[in-house]
Amino acid sequence: MARLSTELKNDALHRIGEALRSEAQRIETANCEDLARAEESRVPAPLVKRLRFDRNKIEDLVLALNDIAALPEPVGRVRCARELDTGLLLHQVSCPLGVVGMIFESRPDALVQIAALALKSGNAVMLKGGSEALATNRALSEVIETASRASGVPAGWLQLLETRAQAAEMLQLDRYIDLIIPRGSNEFVREVMQSTTIPVLGHADGVCHLYLHRDADPQMAASIAVDAKTQYVAVCNAIETLLVHAEGAEGFLPLVAERLQQAGVTLRGCERTRKLVAAAEPASDEDWGTEYLDYILAVRVVDSLETAMEHINTYGSGHTDAIVTADRNAAEEFMQGVDAASVMWNCSTRFADGYRYGLGAEVGISTAKIHARGPVGLEGLLSYTWRVHGSGHIVADYSGPEARGVTHRELPTG
Amino acid sequence: MARLSTELKNDALHRIGEALRSEAQRIETANCEDLARAEESRVPAPLVKRLRFDRNKIEDLVLALNDIAALPEPVGRVRCARELDTGLLLHQVSCPLGVVGMIFESRPDALVQIAALALKSGNAVMLKGGSEALATNRALSEVIETASRASGVPAGWLQLLETRAQAAEMLQLDRYIDLIIPRGSNEFVREVMQSTTIPVLGHADGVCHLYLHRDADPQMAASIAVDAKTQYVAVCNAIETLLVHAEGAEGFLPLVAERLQQAGVTLRGCERTRKLVAAAEPASDEDWGTEYLDYILAVRVVDSLETAMEHINTYGSGHTDAIVTADRNAAEEFMQGVDAASVMWNCSTRFADGYRYGLGAEVGISTAKIHARGPVGLEGLLSYTWRVHGSGHIVADYSGPEARGVTHRELPTG
Repeated sequence: MARLSTELKNDALHRIGEALRSEAQRIETANCEDLARAEESRVPAPLVKRLRFDRNKIEDLVLALNDIAALPEPVGRVRCARELDTGLLLHQVSCPLGVVGMIFESRPDALVQIAALALKSGNAVMLKGGSEALATNRALSEVIETASRASGVPAGWLQLLETRAQAAEMLQLDRYIDLIIPRGSNEFVREVMQSTTIPVLGHADGVCHLYLHRDADPQMAASIAVDAKTQYVAVCNAIETLLVHAEGAEGFLPLVAERLQQAGVTLRGCERTRKLVAAAEPASDEDWGTEYLDYILAVRVVDSLETAMEHINTYGSGHTDAIVTADRNAAEEFMQGVDAASVMWNCSTRFADGYRYGLGAEVGISTAKIHARGPVGLEGLLSYTWRVHGSGHIVADYSGPEARGVTHRELPTG
Repeated sequence: MARLSTELKNDALHRIGEALRSEAQRIETANCEDLARAEESRVPAPLVKRLRFDRNKIEDLVLALNDIAALPEPVGRVRCARELDTGLLLHQVSCPLGVVGMIFESRPDALVQIAALALKSGNAVMLKGGSEALATNRALSEVIETASRASGVPAGWLQLLETRAQAAEMLQLDRYIDLIIPRGSNEFVREVMQSTTIPVLGHADGVCHLYLHRDADPQMAASIAVDAKTQYVAVCNAIETLLVHAEGAEGFLPLVAERLQQAGVTLRGCERTRKLVAAAEPASDEDWGTEYLDYILAVRVVDSLETAMEHINTYGSGHTDAIVTADRNAAEEFMQGVDAASVMWNCSTRFADGYRYGLGAEVGISTAKIHARGPVGLEGLLSYTWRVHGSGHIVADYSGPEARGVTHRELPTG
């Protein structure tokens, strides 16, 4: 997989798209089987909706596959080049991780997306989907494997796991699997994280904050608060707590609260908040660490930027936190002092997303500090290797009293 | 720690060096206590030697501290900059990991080195040294803490653990500790890796290979083989197995074997090797995965480059592997197909080292593919954060049928 050419991989991605179209009938038949089974077993309606896989989804995926094919080749990129001595050259070169394991809940489109990203980055992939999508996932993975084999991708690069026991076994294979990517609810991700020693790319919680500093522009503060809370409440980069500087609270909190309430948000405030916002319900300590994913927002008045950062570093999940202020120094201090994957100044936390960041594709959003952090594009599926080209160089010549000197000259990487 | 200025950190590093000198008497007294205890309890002589901490070591460390102070500031480096839209800027900026845990066997100088690297990179650090060095480690960490506090480094950034129970407890703190760095024997590192879910930077084994392709220059092959095996046999980047292409074996294996034997190396060969090298002892399957760290080398004749790569990917430890060949295509294939942190062409595996690679400092050598790989410099103690600077931007303006377009224009990072 690591040695596949760019042309071969892109050809395979295009062929997979064509095969999804030409095998649409077969995929839809399999999906109907899953849907019928889901309805029989009274799966909740929103889950059934996510399970549905029709020709519109196929067309969306064909576009996504073409986009992925159009991305620059991720493997073999020189990240650093250095002359160690005459004729002795060091290159740090990107390479695939090896084998990526993915476990996801019902949406079968995730299978196609992650398989395509794995292929583009030269990784083999093991996939475990939800049992309710078994027939659809089986059809999709067969179509993908057959189409990619026709381009010359080695057989077996994509493995579909079908049982929980197989998934549990995969999570134990830390010698063979380099990264696990879980997609699903917070509980699901947390469960995966706790049951493996393989590195996991993802995030269990998204407890994001917006902090309004003393000099925040009230209109900007209100607009960002409403967007960050309500533009899409069910996502990980929506805010769950609003922190307000005591010195400015009287000036802007009533306006911000009013705009949030007009947008349908219930506020849960600390005592000082409730003195300024009559309609706010009382907040308990539990609220500070809660990811509502709903039209609810905790609000707390704090005495200083320092207290705001302490609050965020204590209760936050290290996902995305923002400050609204006219003071560049306060913003810099906030962005250096808050320990989060994304920190923002005068804009909505909702921008924390691989597509909005211009990463080309989103593999996931990680709150780990090791490997990739925040919105992760294809580089999350890559490692690197060091390559040294010599012409007979030996270390003995560089040791002892008559050691040769080294040059350590940086070279262009282009 | 993440917000300390470059000047403050470098001042602290210089002060630590001065304090090591001015407190030399106290440190040596503590070391004598450890040495006396070690001799009483009949600790083996090589361990006692590594435990000794005298004024020469202090002078070496002062040089190392000054070198670390002179390194460029690792925190706050812009790794990527992109305009998302007018006035909406994205930066990927390096930042400290947070808290690094280090567990090391007897050498007390490791404590000073890792503390200095942690300080330079803005990390807090927990250190657990060998119990035989308890008094020395205590004296050193007190000297470091006092000196760094005088520069304004926050108290408590360096914590010395003194018991096995504390170390075991640290390995469980996956919510608070971001990276574990173990230094010691293979067994020790493997034990640490198996007893924590915190990411570990290190390597348990160094089963490195040298492959001589059909057209290898016999003199170059012999010179590299001798260097890679004998320049320092007890290190992880020394080779343990020599693979020889069948088509060239008759031509160069006798010469290479002779030169190795002259350097004191015992050869353990496969059957085909033993037909060409009378003095080679028979190798068993176990030899292929063994890290001798001694004047012993396993030798196997293989039929193709493909078989050589398969052998390496099966029995190797992903540390460092090299090929000798005049054929650029074969070399490229080897370097793409071998799954190792360092892959080399026509030079000795012994070059795989942070100082030789010009990294400025070596935090360790990692065989993991996640985070840092191969020889790891200061960047192994860093993560990154995404910073978005807006001027009131909200996501609602970029959604729906009248969505604003984005620019996604790359900006210079300098």
